Amino acid sequence: MSSNIELCFDFGSPTTYLAYHRLKWIKQEYGVEVELTPVLLGGIFQAAGNQSPVMVPLKGAWMNDDLQRYAKLYDVSMTFNPHFPINTLYLMRGAIAAEQMGVFELYVETVFDAMWRAPVNMGDPAVVTDVLTKAGIDAAELFRRIEDSELKEVLKNNTTKAVERGVFGCPATFYKGEQFFGQDRLFFIERDLRAAQ
Amino acid sequence: MSSNIELCFDFGSPTTYLAYHRLKWIKQEYGVEVELTPVLLGGIFQAAGNQSPVMVPLKGAWMNDDLQRYAKLYDVSMTFNPHFPINTLYLMRGAIAAEQMGVFELYVETVFDAMWRAPVNMGDPAVVTDVLTKAGIDAAELFRRIEDSELKEVLKNNTTKAVERGVFGCPATFYKGEQFFGQDRLFFIERDLRAAQ
Repeated sequence: MSSNIELCFDFGSPTTYLAYHRLKWIKQEYGVEVELTPVLLGGIFQAAGNQSPVMVPLKGAWMNDDLQRYAKLYDVSMTFNPHFPINTLYLMRGAIAAEQMGVFELYVETVFDAMWRAPVNMGDPAVVTDVLTKAGIDAAELFRRIEDSELKEVLKNNTTKAVERGVFGCPATFYKGEQFFGQDRLFFIERDLRAAQ
Repeated sequence: MSSNIELCFDFGSPTTYLAYHRLKWIKQEYGVEVELTPVLLGGIFQAAGNQSPVMVPLKGAWMNDDLQRYAKLYDVSMTFNPHFPINTLYLMRGAIAAEQMGVFELYVETVFDAMWRAPVNMGDPAVVTDVLTKAGIDAAELFRRIEDSELKEVLKNNTTKAVERGVFGCPATFYKGEQFFGQDRLFFIERDLRAAQ
């Protein structure tokens, strides 16, 4: 069994931002590989008959506290994006384009940062251009690539395959063939890695 | 600030069964008081616009694994009830009656056990009678009491008050004025208690 970890992610999810950072820490701490798979959370919700937890207002209110508790626990800087929810279709297609352009890691770090640390309105193409350019990413080239129909299919396939593997939301993490849903379940993976040391 | 803990519970929720047992352990480990408040989860869902997580089939499937992972972590014996979902209105009214009869703790332990360890069909009055009688609880007296309109109001008020305090599901735990939703968030409370030792 591989001890590699796969995270199905969408930038629009604040808990996925936490999972992304926690997995960076786990990667460093335990020397495992972490693979990031771009998916479209909206597509997953639709296919699975699920919805954002904030659709229940009291749950949304409680989640604000919960996110801050975990941000503190993980020592991650986080500010809830006032423009939430942001349509992430172009940003997620952008992740596929960034991979083609050889700037995947930089793109993911930059966009998560702009979404949940800065935070700025990443639903606005002008803001996205500015953020990417400042990070040294060719925004014009990325925007050109995300219009490609084959690229669009890659994101669609990632999303469909995730649902076929039982994914109903983000973050969904796979480890040793099992799904762990939620940033809060990463400690099961960490526990297993610690025990194996 | 009091370090007492309050759990809003409904027997119908498998995660609440785990929270109940984890809190028994926390109580013993840290010498804190744990108050159990009977509420009606169906009423909370209706008021909060929420629904059972198993309404999303892929989430329900994942939860089976997740419950077993936590049962193992907490060293709690658990079997998913094949009769789930069970209407818990009478069982929750029964908790109020049991309090009046001076057998609250015994009743709660007995019913949780029958729901999530045995497990048996606690939606069937004959089964409930059998389970309570074997535990030494006067089932006839309890069934008589749950028809009382004042008793019905107590459960209704508990439920309404919980929603007013921000509760949108079970288990909801209050500690130092903050709500912790889910059995999985009890570790924040445990962490705080440990730090204070």
